Amino acid sequence: MHPETTFEENGLSLLSVKNHIATITLNRPKQYNALSRPMIASVSAILDKINGDKDIHVVVLAANGPGFCAGHDLKEIRENRNENYIEALFNECSQMMLKILKLNQPVIAKVHSIATAAGCQLVATCDLAVVSEKARFATPGVNIGLFCSTPMVALSRNVSRKHAMEMLLTGDIFSAEHALHIGLINKVVQEDDLDRAVEELALKIASKSLLTLSMGKRAFYKQLEAGISDAYEYAGAVMCQNMMTRDADEGIKAFLEKRQPEWTGI
Amino acid sequence: MHPETTFEENGLSLLSVKNHIATITLNRPKQYNALSRPMIASVSAILDKINGDKDIHVVVLAANGPGFCAGHDLKEIRENRNENYIEALFNECSQMMLKILKLNQPVIAKVHSIATAAGCQLVATCDLAVVSEKARFATPGVNIGLFCSTPMVALSRNVSRKHAMEMLLTGDIFSAEHALHIGLINKVVQEDDLDRAVEELALKIASKSLLTLSMGKRAFYKQLEAGISDAYEYAGAVMCQNMMTRDADEGIKAFLEKRQPEWTGI
Amino acid sequence: MHPETTFEENGLSLLSVKNHIATITLNRPKQYNALSRPMIASVSAILDKINGDKDIHVVVLAANGPGFCAGHDLKEIRENRNENYIEALFNECSQMMLKILKLNQPVIAKVHSIATAAGCQLVATCDLAVVSEKARFATPGVNIGLFCSTPMVALSRNVSRKHAMEMLLTGDIFSAEHALHIGLINKVVQEDDLDRAVEELALKIASKSLLTLSMGKRAFYKQLEAGISDAYEYAGAVMCQNMMTRDADEGIKAFLEKRQPEWTGI
Repeated sequence: MHPETTFEENGLSLLSVKNHIATITLNRPKQYNALSRPMIASVSAILDKINGDKDIHVVVLAANGPGFCAGHDLKEIRENRNENYIEALFNECSQMMLKILKLNQPVIAKVHSIATAAGCQLVATCDLAVVSEKARFATPGVNIGLFCSTPMVALSRNVSRKHAMEMLLTGDIFSAEHALHIGLINKVVQEDDLDRAVEELALKIASKSLLTLSMGKRAFYKQLEAGISDAYEYAGAVMCQNMMTRDADEGIKAFLEKRQPEWTGI
Repeated sequence: MHPETTFEENGLSLLSVKNHIATITLNRPKQYNALSRPMIASVSAILDKINGDKDIHVVVLAANGPGFCAGHDLKEIRENRNENYIEALFNECSQMMLKILKLNQPVIAKVHSIATAAGCQLVATCDLAVVSEKARFATPGVNIGLFCSTPMVALSRNVSRKHAMEMLLTGDIFSAEHALHIGLINKVVQEDDLDRAVEELALKIASKSLLTLSMGKRAFYKQLEAGISDAYEYAGAVMCQNMMTRDADEGIKAFLEKRQPEWTGI
Repeated sequence: MHPETTFEENGLSLLSVKNHIATITLNRPKQYNALSRPMIASVSAILDKINGDKDIHVVVLAANGPGFCAGHDLKEIRENRNENYIEALFNECSQMMLKILKLNQPVIAKVHSIATAAGCQLVATCDLAVVSEKARFATPGVNIGLFCSTPMVALSRNVSRKHAMEMLLTGDIFSAEHALHIGLINKVVQEDDLDRAVEELALKIASKSLLTLSMGKRAFYKQLEAGISDAYEYAGAVMCQNMMTRDADEGIKAFLEKRQPEWTGI
């Protein structure tokens, strides 16, 4: 992909690439970026497109309009309430979440406003999250008789049980400060500072070797699901493999020579 | 069960039901509600009684007297120190804890004072916990040569390893503020405000569909024990099943029509 | 081992024992205690030596020089960059970490300064950590093209995903306060207060029964890897076994008689 590219997948989500940073922007602003099936397909297509791209070292997931993401599209659900449709919808949504986890590049959620249900799940799923003080978080499915069961898969792997259960059982809206306290996000900044804070973080990560980031991210989620002895055996093998790459050789050499490394991605 | 009921199981624990909220009150005040075998049997019987009850949407676990719960009854243990008795005691206690986890209704611990050993385990086991600023928490078994090994099952699934180990290895008594910091509880309020704060939270949860709460609570603990891909597959199936209920249909309809839903529990 | 002993394993790490407290001191001060293979062998030998020692109830892991531990020795790696050497190095390092986890005695990290990469992993691996306000923490492998994959095994089992990923993906140096916020450590004290704070904690734990501490520590890490029902079954059996020890009998008796217990370690 060219260093600077913009791309639209049906216009429902947008992609732009600059300085090794890809920004995916949810773009159904009037619907608070509700995740209709076409919207999920759009984001998934962009994730597939960038996954193998060596010019992209890090991804920012942002959103247009007054909300970050309102979760599923209740009108779409209401109009298609049959098992086949619903099953496909949740399956496609879970697959999109797993694509983020399995993406070669780290993904930073840039949250300027409210993120609810599957929108909150998106934030929980991203590797990192930087949010505006105006951001809000909720898993309000319980209020409409539909427990946020898929969002809780990501939520409960990010925060303690009591904190996850409080969000899930009350459906209440929680502040950015609370999200920081419970470990759902990494950083809260002033509204005007969000662009700068996310860019700074993205540029820092983009300066690393993509090969190293990819090996590390994949290993992170894999080892988490193993017992600690197996995790060490696996991580030790990853370390070895990583050490044999040219980027690690160059990185260590540059460090000992007190100069900047030049990554080749091999 | 009638909308307002009171019930005593040997007097060792009390049950009252009002506004879809069941309150179980530990009632061995002079013994700091120590969990003797008859006490465990009493609480377990109440949990069994309310588990299938459609008039109860949420449960509050409270306690009478100067302490919340002092854990096991050391005098009972001292008088019956043989393997069969001890094995039965710990088995029955663990089964009581699992009954809370598996209960159809969410359970809120209302902690007005000190909770130690299996008493601290009770707090860790409940889905939510609201406590007075006077509450204190400890797993002091190590001080009497008997490590809090069953309490740590619940504790270590609520807080980080370092925090759990600090409680377990020192046996120290920790403040409500510390318990909040480490994620063991949800909220600390002033002593005089505990009744109101718990009632407010209980009423909020009681206003939801019991069917939805039950499906969600069961799925929460089940998916936590799976790898993330399996967890999504399972949670997706739960979501589908939930969507096909009348309560979800009514909830979504009510939301789109901007009115309060009317739950039927089916 | 005599009540007061000092011991050097090649001088790369030091052991002293006093008041049932063993202090292991990393002792390559000029190399910021980088974990070369001989250094790992030295620490491992000391861990093996003290593991069965009934005079040692608790272990402090400290370090000499300006840094706590800088992780692996990059010069050694640079000079021996072949698969066999690297595989052996990471395997031996992981085994050392697992020795800490499996040690009969609890281990307290005493961190006076910066701990990076495998040095940060050491802190994450210890059961408890007390640190100076001057302590700093980082997993900076990503900066040299070598992701901190083995350190993350310990890190990701101590702190939330977002917090672990932030350390791993940025390689940034984090403050003692941040480490406290994310649950990586137990306590931050003023620089001048570190000796006193660690000694106080170590003496408190040293006053417990070693048998009880050992049974509890082993059970802690084992039950963490099981589902909750299995964990309760296992922990219940441990509780029974613990109850049948003379130390538990004495501890309960002393408690009921309001006197100090006298441990025999059986």
